[in-house]
Amino acid sequence: MKTIKQLTVASLVGLSAVANAQAQDKSNAAADYELSVLNKLGSPAAVVNMPVSQLLNAPGNEALRAFFFTPVQNKALLKGKRIAVLAADGFEEIELLGPVWYFRELGAQVDIVAPKFVPAPERYGLMFPEMAKTHIMAIQYLQPVGWIKFDRTADQIKVADYDAVFIPGGAWNPDNLRQDKDVIKFIRDFNASGKLIAAICHAPVVLASADILNGRKLTGYWNIQVDLKNAGGTVLEQPVVTDGNLITSRHPIDVADFSRAVEKWLTK
Amino acid sequence: MKTIKQLTVASLVGLSAVANAQAQDKSNAAADYELSVLNKLGSPAAVVNMPVSQLLNAPGNEALRAFFFTPVQNKALLKGKRIAVLAADGFEEIELLGPVWYFRELGAQVDIVAPKFVPAPERYGLMFPEMAKTHIMAIQYLQPVGWIKFDRTADQIKVADYDAVFIPGGAWNPDNLRQDKDVIKFIRDFNASGKLIAAICHAPVVLASADILNGRKLTGYWNIQVDLKNAGGTVLEQPVVTDGNLITSRHPIDVADFSRAVEKWLTK
Repeated sequence: MKTIKQLTVASLVGLSAVANAQAQDKSNAAADYELSVLNKLGSPAAVVNMPVSQLLNAPGNEALRAFFFTPVQNKALLKGKRIAVLAADGFEEIELLGPVWYFRELGAQVDIVAPKFVPAPERYGLMFPEMAKTHIMAIQYLQPVGWIKFDRTADQIKVADYDAVFIPGGAWNPDNLRQDKDVIKFIRDFNASGKLIAAICHAPVVLASADILNGRKLTGYWNIQVDLKNAGGTVLEQPVVTDGNLITSRHPIDVADFSRAVEKWLTK
Repeated sequence: MKTIKQLTVASLVGLSAVANAQAQDKSNAAADYELSVLNKLGSPAAVVNMPVSQLLNAPGNEALRAFFFTPVQNKALLKGKRIAVLAADGFEEIELLGPVWYFRELGAQVDIVAPKFVPAPERYGLMFPEMAKTHIMAIQYLQPVGWIKFDRTADQIKVADYDAVFIPGGAWNPDNLRQDKDVIKFIRDFNASGKLIAAICHAPVVLASADILNGRKLTGYWNIQVDLKNAGGTVLEQPVVTDGNLITSRHPIDVADFSRAVEKWLTK
């Protein structure tokens, strides 16, 4: 099958493509091996989690792996484009860092924008480490895994500052974003401007809170699709849905399609 | 103020109540001190979390603390009542263990019921510890804190087995419950039977997935209230809402009111 596929490719785009494809096959085989070793260097999970090496090495995710392991060709493709990532504590690590890595590889300026830190009422019994004032917490499903520093806070940003807004998932992250008045107002204004809003996994619930889904086609994590439908959206079961200025995806397995759809939108 | 309050109490229910109230004041003061020591024995959080001692010791949560620290009077009040707790990985610890502790103190039979363990598709990159086959994972907000063994799985239970169903919160727990066909069918059938369904915090989204909220009065965690409204519910901003066979609350701070509303419903 591989040979036939390569010949078809050759007949279309010439012999150099065959050489590229063969190099990529070798590179994919090496990635297979390296990821399988990495996965053997991890003991069974203490907590239900989602290691990136596990995700990238799973059968069926070859295209996702190739997305990350194939160097980008044009490092200036998104030069001059400014992207705001709206995120809060509990964001799904690969859903934020994956697209952000890709957009930065393509030359975009990406800012991590978090809700302004406002301590929760004492009654809620929450403890925030000091670094929660300057960082947001990453998870891999149920496992907290790290912190990233944010660049700006949602009360500081203006629609004119950005060409696109991107919201990653994780159940708690969108939940936290929903309650932030600055985030909701910014999304409403950004949507009114017609500029791109991209949301993956659980993130589209933030758009439901901003009440911008009525009559829109979109997708999202399976368990929240009913909320998107109840918010007036038409939910499609596909890896990525582009409807006007709205790009949505379902899950980390869609990160490649999602990121490429954003790339396409910003370069059209 | 304390003296005036005690006198008012005394004029209503007699001197023994004053003695009880004084004993309770002493007991509350001791609890204040003990919780404040406990909180000093914990170093600042590594991860945003919600220690129970912090929650119970917060100003404004005196009634919640008294709920847990006042021995129940009638240990047979709920004798013969059978309660199913529907829960999955990522349940908010105090929202499950708090009411369960109370219902068991009152003599109820409480079963922890989890979705039947079905490994996620390999593509999703998830790692489940062996014990995920027999236990579900507790969190304190973003921090995984432990596992509890479940008694039955959702495919094994019948409406006739229980007098009430109770669903705790945590963002991931209800999210996981939403995708389980057995859970959703059970909730629909249970609702049709007119028996009690109680849900706290993020749990009411499971009722939205079961499509049983149209025309119902309820409450829930602030960030999901828009989903409950979009599902046809009328959302009230109060610690607990009882509407027919539906009891709902917003947050761990409501655990006492929530548990007492369930108690009242089951003994009416």
